[in-house]
Amino acid sequence: MKAKVIVKLKEGVLDPQGQAIQQLLAQRGYSQIADVRVGKLVEFELENVTPIEGEAMLAEIADKLLANPIIESYRIESQ
Amino acid sequence: MKAKVIVKLKEGVLDPQGQAIQQLLAQRGYSQIADVRVGKLVEFELENVTPIEGEAMLAEIADKLLANPIIESYRIESQ
Repeated sequence: MKAKVIVKLKEGVLDPQGQAIQQLLAQRGYSQIADVRVGKLVEFELENVTPIEGEAMLAEIADKLLANPIIESYRIESQ
Repeated sequence: MKAKVIVKLKEGVLDPQGQAIQQLLAQRGYSQIADVRVGKLVEFELENVTPIEGEAMLAEIADKLLANPIIESYRIESQ
């Protein structure tokens, strides 16, 4: 089973990395880029699990290890 | 216009960050996680561009700044 976890900063949380990219792009003439936000994409290959077990496992992993629940949210997409 | 650029390591390129996550998970008992690969997700908000202009601009930005074409590939998703 393949699945991915997408981790994003919550709305309203400042994204310094995204701001740095946006400023760099503005300096290079890309003034149409109004906002940039950077997230993480983590792709998993799981063995010997049902889709339901796999999703539950990834939710546990995302909660514990991949996302900081204070500032980040995540979603899981099975393939 | 909103769009995202998803940057991934090409197939066959070693992913040390993904391997570190996979090993950490194995140590914690998640032996069903056979492989982990980490990518980047960059979300853009564009102003005063048509969808075609926006996609062309993001392809240029991804080529020049976001992806290393030797080891990474990217795709653009408009929303």
